[in-house]
Amino acid sequence: MSEIYCDWAATALFDTEILEKAYKTSIEFAGNPSSVHQKGIDAKYTLQNARKRCATSLGVKEENIVFTSGGTESNHIAILSLLNRPVKGSILVSSLEHPAIREQAEMMKKCGWQVYKIPSDENGIITAESVIKAMKDDTALVSIMAVNNETGSIMPIYEISDALTNHCAGKRRPKFHVDAVQAVGKIPLDLSYKGIDFASISAHKIGGPRGIGILYAKDKFEPFLRGGGQENGLRSGTENLFGAEAISLCLEKYFIKKDDVETASYKRYLEQIEYTSEFISKLQENPKTLILPKTRKPQDERFSPWVVQVAFKDLPGEVLVRELSSRKIYISTGSACSSRKLSRPILDAMKISKDIATWGVRFSFGHSTTRDEMMKIVDEVEEILKTFG
Amino acid sequence: MSEIYCDWAATALFDTEILEKAYKTSIEFAGNPSSVHQKGIDAKYTLQNARKRCATSLGVKEENIVFTSGGTESNHIAILSLLNRPVKGSILVSSLEHPAIREQAEMMKKCGWQVYKIPSDENGIITAESVIKAMKDDTALVSIMAVNNETGSIMPIYEISDALTNHCAGKRRPKFHVDAVQAVGKIPLDLSYKGIDFASISAHKIGGPRGIGILYAKDKFEPFLRGGGQENGLRSGTENLFGAEAISLCLEKYFIKKDDVETASYKRYLEQIEYTSEFISKLQENPKTLILPKTRKPQDERFSPWVVQVAFKDLPGEVLVRELSSRKIYISTGSACSSRKLSRPILDAMKISKDIATWGVRFSFGHSTTRDEMMKIVDEVEEILKTFG
Repeated sequence: MSEIYCDWAATALFDTEILEKAYKTSIEFAGNPSSVHQKGIDAKYTLQNARKRCATSLGVKEENIVFTSGGTESNHIAILSLLNRPVKGSILVSSLEHPAIREQAEMMKKCGWQVYKIPSDENGIITAESVIKAMKDDTALVSIMAVNNETGSIMPIYEISDALTNHCAGKRRPKFHVDAVQAVGKIPLDLSYKGIDFASISAHKIGGPRGIGILYAKDKFEPFLRGGGQENGLRSGTENLFGAEAISLCLEKYFIKKDDVETASYKRYLEQIEYTSEFISKLQENPKTLILPKTRKPQDERFSPWVVQVAFKDLPGEVLVRELSSRKIYISTGSACSSRKLSRPILDAMKISKDIATWGVRFSFGHSTTRDEMMKIVDEVEEILKTFG
Repeated sequence: MSEIYCDWAATALFDTEILEKAYKTSIEFAGNPSSVHQKGIDAKYTLQNARKRCATSLGVKEENIVFTSGGTESNHIAILSLLNRPVKGSILVSSLEHPAIREQAEMMKKCGWQVYKIPSDENGIITAESVIKAMKDDTALVSIMAVNNETGSIMPIYEISDALTNHCAGKRRPKFHVDAVQAVGKIPLDLSYKGIDFASISAHKIGGPRGIGILYAKDKFEPFLRGGGQENGLRSGTENLFGAEAISLCLEKYFIKKDDVETASYKRYLEQIEYTSEFISKLQENPKTLILPKTRKPQDERFSPWVVQVAFKDLPGEVLVRELSSRKIYISTGSACSSRKLSRPILDAMKISKDIATWGVRFSFGHSTTRDEMMKIVDEVEEILKTFG
């Protein structure tokens, strides 16, 4: 039996065509883009070209694109920029954030900042109302992810952005950061939407290599992390041309621009909605199936079709992951980043009971996932449930 | 005429054999090393194997190896770990440090830390005495590079480490960080030397890809940058297996272990001492040549043989870089990181006059540099000096 990989939210399968193309480019333009000799100038030109193509794909300006080492660093750069401020204030993060935001925000307390958590509703969604309710007079940064990595819940980031603008009319508006790592290439997105100040993007979630990401920054800002001054001073470290080229190709191929319905990536997204709808419906034929959150319908625009969190009554998630793994089907319980820990903070935030949380597993799909693979998983899960029933 | 690349201190030419091998490994073990299914376990095993091989090459323990996104981030992690301390103190950095240390240390002032610069002597060397003289009672971190990136001057890091230990007998000793980016694979090195707490390593200076580095950490420490908890909690972000594999291969091939005189890397180093000696001697036949610092002898154990900083009287460095570039010979003035700026902080710190500093250029060599290439450069420079004379 061949492998079925359904852990795309942890890391995507590589798009080896893109990787090879990017690799060749990086070998051809091997100079340090900051060197002023011809080999450096050629590398710089290639880097800037990659930046331009990223910007075009995202529908933003080139100067908005800061290449980073990945989603985690993009998040860090946005948060740490606060340390430049002479007056300390508060940070609002949702209780559903990835640890690169949630835990990094906590660390800011050591530097005199206050951190407030915006509670999630039971569907794993952060509403605009809950954001505004949590606002303080000194809030300098609000960070809300676009798509949750464990449940696929979609946050109303545009509504939140508007609500912040309205709430702060006549006052200093906090910066609004969106961790878009699980949204880019997954759901239609518009990062140029007014009021989105920062957004984090990772290449390896969309077929690219590890070690490269983007921080979208609407405006120039003062960075806290310093060094050689690359990336217009916003992210120091010798520029990773292989990564920049690869992420530009990934965005060209996979980014789903809002309303750009004729693109292949948009069509693949619509197809996935159908697949996932059928997947959920089939799983629900077994009474042991509990889709998390329970209000999620097979076809539900509040959720990314690429991520499904499910609990199977009395079957510990860890056991199911191992059982499926032995059948060459690869899924996770929750985030890969916390897979070796026992806690499930996202499910806790959704007030899902400890029992159900321990049964939870995450199926996450990607562009090369087929309907057949998903149906095969349903069958295998069914069989495992019988064995353990 | 074929290219002559002598800007290795900015970035090395790729060792494509290593890159291709690492690339294949990363494609074969494509899972997220933090995922608990078989694909994740296999990737984790491969990552740990790379870590083990890095440790063996460096002569340290596996748990000392933290994979990072490069030298800059390694430096940042070491400095930022101070932000965990409840009591603020001071940081000592040399005036010759790379901006990733020098400027990042400055930023720590915004978080209540004091920063003191250790002056350089006129040879671009930080003596143990000058370090001890600069010590304060509350010094928490001392950061000294092993080899300067612009002049190749070698700092007496073992002596400095011992001096710190002696000076602090009975008191809390500050952490000692060594930026070893220009030393690893260039001069014989012993990072396991007692009293070296942290060291930064970059892959792309020794033939590897950009976007991967190592922070050597003698002991477990509390990191300030947080996230998914990868790298034993010390560096978050999905593990870059391609990078880890590549740097492990680079260290196996290029690291020069102290006293390990029978290795190919050590022999190549001895060879380079001869080449550089001849290179400097030949250049000095022209009275316009000013080796920087002027006390540097053709063969001089105080300097890395891979980096030579030279001023040619009345010939602006920028002009020489461009002239040589048009002849397909690639060198820099100083650090690539500051090549687009006009200041020369390292030469300033050595009290080299502004005039001479503007004439300065850096020749930096690497493992595939040949004696013939170096002699060819001497001829070309000679010709250019005549033209501009």
